[in-house]
Amino acid sequence: MDKVIHAIQDDYADDYSWCYGCGRLNKQGLQLRTGWNRDKTVTIYTPHEEHKAIPGFVYGGVIASLVDCHGTGSAALALHRKNGHEPGDEVEPPRFVTASLHVDYLKPTPQGVPLKAIGTIEEIHPKKWKVVTEVFANDICVVKGEVIAVVMPKSFIQQ
Amino acid sequence: MDKVIHAIQDDYADDYSWCYGCGRLNKQGLQLRTGWNRDKTVTIYTPHEEHKAIPGFVYGGVIASLVDCHGTGSAALALHRKNGHEPGDEVEPPRFVTASLHVDYLKPTPQGVPLKAIGTIEEIHPKKWKVVTEVFANDICVVKGEVIAVVMPKSFIQQ
Repeated sequence: MDKVIHAIQDDYADDYSWCYGCGRLNKQGLQLRTGWNRDKTVTIYTPHEEHKAIPGFVYGGVIASLVDCHGTGSAALALHRKNGHEPGDEVEPPRFVTASLHVDYLKPTPQGVPLKAIGTIEEIHPKKWKVVTEVFANDICVVKGEVIAVVMPKSFIQQ
Repeated sequence: MDKVIHAIQDDYADDYSWCYGCGRLNKQGLQLRTGWNRDKTVTIYTPHEEHKAIPGFVYGGVIASLVDCHGTGSAALALHRKNGHEPGDEVEPPRFVTASLHVDYLKPTPQGVPLKAIGTIEEIHPKKWKVVTEVFANDICVVKGEVIAVVMPKSFIQQ
């Protein structure tokens, strides 16, 4: 799988689509897109040239951003599916926020190649999901991550 | 303390100063700067308008980047001090990389105000340091983080 066709972020309501990591309306952001591949979730992203730690290697904060939005996107995919929907259905999906983020940097991550985040999702509570992610570069697992994602509180958008 | 005067990143060798988070030579990056305040470390950063999660609140990936570079910078400050040096000494400091990053998002982080990361450092091993960070917005702790930083392996720069 080289491309995500139907991404959950494509279906977020406009008000929720400004995220620097995954908002389709944030033109300066990374515009990460997350979809299903059977029962796993996938986000594919090639960091820009400036997203380096030292020349040749990707900056860890950009990888953390990938793990973060892949996590909230995966949780949204899972709850949406539990509710009987798939991306592309034209039904607005739930929107999650990150309660915690953990990233283990296993190997230096080479620049100039697509990074593929693969997620495994577990429901902890109807509004709280755990997403365990492996990030691959050239089919080598370079990073493992975990996100605890919770349904976005209503107070968040009322501001 | 509202401004870091002597930052460790000011003294990194040029080859190590391209980091998207904290490299002074990466003009498209965040250019985070980390210094001492007595025995704590401090990084102060005001995210840009585009660095939002939803309008009004900062994107978690940018906060993770702040915790990340604040962690490696703090570890570099600590080992540099252990070696008898302070930023501004014109002695090249050690350079660390992140082995693991953990971020707990305690509260939504408001946009448009400086975020202050305060670090507490512990030596685990001469080449491996733990940095526990609290991030404050308007003097309220919004995020807690932890970085395990290790001295950059020589293989990293030889590529």
